[in-house]
Amino acid sequence: MRLKDFSRMVNGTVFGDPEIELTGVSGIQDAGDGDITFISSPGFRKYLEKCRASCVIVKEVLGEIDIAQVQVSNPQYAFAKAIEFFYPRPVFAPGISPKAVVSDKASIGEKATIFPFAYISDGASVGDETVIFPGVYIGEGSSIGRRCVVHPNAVIHGNVKIGDGVIIHPGAVIGSDGFGFVFEAGEHYKIPQVGRVIVHDNVEIGANACVDRATLGETRIGKGTKIDNLVQIAHNVRIGEKSIIVSQVGIAGSCEIGDFVTLAGQAGLADHATIDSGTVVAAQAGVAGHLSRGVYSGAPAIPHKNWLRSQALFARLPELQKRIHDLEEKLKILEKERADAEHK
Amino acid sequence: MRLKDFSRMVNGTVFGDPEIELTGVSGIQDAGDGDITFISSPGFRKYLEKCRASCVIVKEVLGEIDIAQVQVSNPQYAFAKAIEFFYPRPVFAPGISPKAVVSDKASIGEKATIFPFAYISDGASVGDETVIFPGVYIGEGSSIGRRCVVHPNAVIHGNVKIGDGVIIHPGAVIGSDGFGFVFEAGEHYKIPQVGRVIVHDNVEIGANACVDRATLGETRIGKGTKIDNLVQIAHNVRIGEKSIIVSQVGIAGSCEIGDFVTLAGQAGLADHATIDSGTVVAAQAGVAGHLSRGVYSGAPAIPHKNWLRSQALFARLPELQKRIHDLEEKLKILEKERADAEHK
Amino acid sequence: MRLKDFSRMVNGTVFGDPEIELTGVSGIQDAGDGDITFISSPGFRKYLEKCRASCVIVKEVLGEIDIAQVQVSNPQYAFAKAIEFFYPRPVFAPGISPKAVVSDKASIGEKATIFPFAYISDGASVGDETVIFPGVYIGEGSSIGRRCVVHPNAVIHGNVKIGDGVIIHPGAVIGSDGFGFVFEAGEHYKIPQVGRVIVHDNVEIGANACVDRATLGETRIGKGTKIDNLVQIAHNVRIGEKSIIVSQVGIAGSCEIGDFVTLAGQAGLADHATIDSGTVVAAQAGVAGHLSRGVYSGAPAIPHKNWLRSQALFARLPELQKRIHDLEEKLKILEKERADAEHK
Repeated sequence: MRLKDFSRMVNGTVFGDPEIELTGVSGIQDAGDGDITFISSPGFRKYLEKCRASCVIVKEVLGEIDIAQVQVSNPQYAFAKAIEFFYPRPVFAPGISPKAVVSDKASIGEKATIFPFAYISDGASVGDETVIFPGVYIGEGSSIGRRCVVHPNAVIHGNVKIGDGVIIHPGAVIGSDGFGFVFEAGEHYKIPQVGRVIVHDNVEIGANACVDRATLGETRIGKGTKIDNLVQIAHNVRIGEKSIIVSQVGIAGSCEIGDFVTLAGQAGLADHATIDSGTVVAAQAGVAGHLSRGVYSGAPAIPHKNWLRSQALFARLPELQKRIHDLEEKLKILEKERADAEHK
Repeated sequence: MRLKDFSRMVNGTVFGDPEIELTGVSGIQDAGDGDITFISSPGFRKYLEKCRASCVIVKEVLGEIDIAQVQVSNPQYAFAKAIEFFYPRPVFAPGISPKAVVSDKASIGEKATIFPFAYISDGASVGDETVIFPGVYIGEGSSIGRRCVVHPNAVIHGNVKIGDGVIIHPGAVIGSDGFGFVFEAGEHYKIPQVGRVIVHDNVEIGANACVDRATLGETRIGKGTKIDNLVQIAHNVRIGEKSIIVSQVGIAGSCEIGDFVTLAGQAGLADHATIDSGTVVAAQAGVAGHLSRGVYSGAPAIPHKNWLRSQALFARLPELQKRIHDLEEKLKILEKERADAEHK
Repeated sequence: MRLKDFSRMVNGTVFGDPEIELTGVSGIQDAGDGDITFISSPGFRKYLEKCRASCVIVKEVLGEIDIAQVQVSNPQYAFAKAIEFFYPRPVFAPGISPKAVVSDKASIGEKATIFPFAYISDGASVGDETVIFPGVYIGEGSSIGRRCVVHPNAVIHGNVKIGDGVIIHPGAVIGSDGFGFVFEAGEHYKIPQVGRVIVHDNVEIGANACVDRATLGETRIGKGTKIDNLVQIAHNVRIGEKSIIVSQVGIAGSCEIGDFVTLAGQAGLADHATIDSGTVVAAQAGVAGHLSRGVYSGAPAIPHKNWLRSQALFARLPELQKRIHDLEEKLKILEKERADAEHK
């Protein structure tokens, strides 16, 4: 691909030779001759000096470099497009492997691919062009939409509804029982978990992540929400659209999370927590109750700015203690003088 | 089912028309005509006004509502019973799928169900009426009790003993190697992990949870203990009866945990920690050493009441710092006056 | 085995009867007649009184005990050797199960064992003497070295390179997509994850752990590094040699971790964190930015000694607040007296 063709593809503007031949795409530290690369943040600009890439994607044209540039409004997006071009998605031959088990009461869409050792239960359906990798289990009555990819050994239990364009990574479990017990007669009695999971279009669910079915009703993950590896989503949780749930986050039962929420890695939400749209919860934070739109850190989570101040002082607690001690000593002296004065 | 029949089933008392026909069960916000529902906490009472349920299960009779009521001692338990009635457990045809691999040195109980792609090793045994879903691996010499359910893609490695009525959720791993190495000659030398895992009756182990085998001896999970998704239980851990281990908890090697202990989500226990029966450890807490019966929070965990006070002051650290600063300024003035007075 | 033979095997010195017959190996609390055991730390010495073992492995000879002793430089290592002797590793019949699916474009080494329900894709290779358990998926073009063990239901996606002597525990996922999106036109647009994962020799990867492939380039795990269960390793992370990553640690994208680093349980690293060789990060700590060699705790991580001091004062915050309050009261009195004095 010539640089001018790439530039046209991403609505860019070329600065340099538009006829340069691009043969690959690489990160800025690894890029070689023929590669296109990009600068993700100003901090990476330093790598440009030694960079052997043939072209760099930029947001603002850089003055003093020798490498050709393509200026675009969103360099990372243009970079994603370059990767797509040079690494086309694998295409799988459609068809149902005779080594899969597909119930004759299941329905498989056109051009779907069902690999060996996949198990598709009664009443389940798999949409057109969807790929079901080996070892995937799809439970009774569950439906998977079109153009989905369900990676190896993922488990989609019964009565789960998955939209179109959803990607489920290896080992993820959708529709496991919620963790619900009631204490009766000296035992934890299991509350049957008979609700559903609804996963809307274009959701991505990470490797070994877990999404529990609702006790009754639905656990719901809104359109375009992306969930990273090893995340726990408990029963009856509702997540809005286009939220980002980073690895190892834990969301307890019945939480409600709005749209465009970011939960950073290892954050935890207690039962029934509610988080307004647009909120950002920092890594390892702990949320109980309600968070209105904002940025939060700490456990319990407080506004990030406040947390920064408190956390800085946490590290200085020994100094604060020393200052308190000094004050006490000085005050003792003053008080003693006063007492002495009175005696006189 | 008529209301009077349900009431009899749960030892309740009807307030309203006992002949009402119940056709379903729902959460209070979703309940419609014919549904029975319940109030889990006083906070949910507000939903009753708009609730269209035909009947509500209550602990104490509510005065001013139109809906029929069933009064019981444990509404949540009665609710569980209602769910059981309206959503009977799925029944699986017993038998061994010819698409499973079952060693001829394994023993399979009566009315057990072995799905396709299950693998059952030499010397393993599966008890009566137990269901082994697709993709389950059962290792050499392991035994699974009666009326267990082992969900898809769970792995029960060799030399594991599982009691009766145990539920193992998808992707859970029981009997993986403990994480044990000894540093020798510049390498982490693997200490063979040759012990067992013993899982007693009525335990539940969550999706993608991990229970490591003992180095030597046993990792043990007591009767009726419930373990949520993505929990880590390391080698030689011993957990008592009827404890509750919430999602993403991590329990390091050789910890000893009593009966009726609750470990809330994402809590972590360091090696050899010991926790007395009846103790509650709050979410995200970190435990090292010994905890006697009580409620604990924070990392390191301290009594919850103390933690609440300290944590409240953490958020007020900037204010405390300001007060220290003000004291210093005022004291300076007093000291200066004193010095001035002495000079006179 | 006689004690003298064991002693020779571990370069030890016998104190006691060298002809004693050893018949087993046990932990100090469980050891019986014929067993060899060891003392892992001085704290365990108390158990020796009631210990019925026939021999104890020690670093320094103990004066007043009846049990025979073997003195060695590294008792835990000698203990590992004893376990190896009494519990020889299981040996699996080599060969490819006809119930596995192995592409005819895949290459399988000599004496490798491929269990039923394993799936090995086009262009994949499995080295000599490697064992692939049931339910394992190996993706296109991936290679597994010699003498590896890939436990049941582990997933090694395409384009992953695994060295020799690597152990991958059940349910682990190597080569899942990195969590990378760019926000464009109101959507989280997926950045294709087309890089590789390189796992060097003698690495161990725990049950249900996840290692994401690089966006471009490589995610790399150095020789002899040991990774525990449920660990998350994101795209483009680089870990050096012989590091120890304990259960439930989360490592975000592009982190660089040196050699001999220890990350204790549930610790978290933010994007692009860098950690020098020999560093220890305590359990539940949170790391952002750079850590030079040392021991760190807390979130954000600070030097462990400082953290200990601050954390101790955290628990005493109510007392500090009280002292500030007392100071304020006393100062008020002094100020009032001064004011009164001036009025006179």
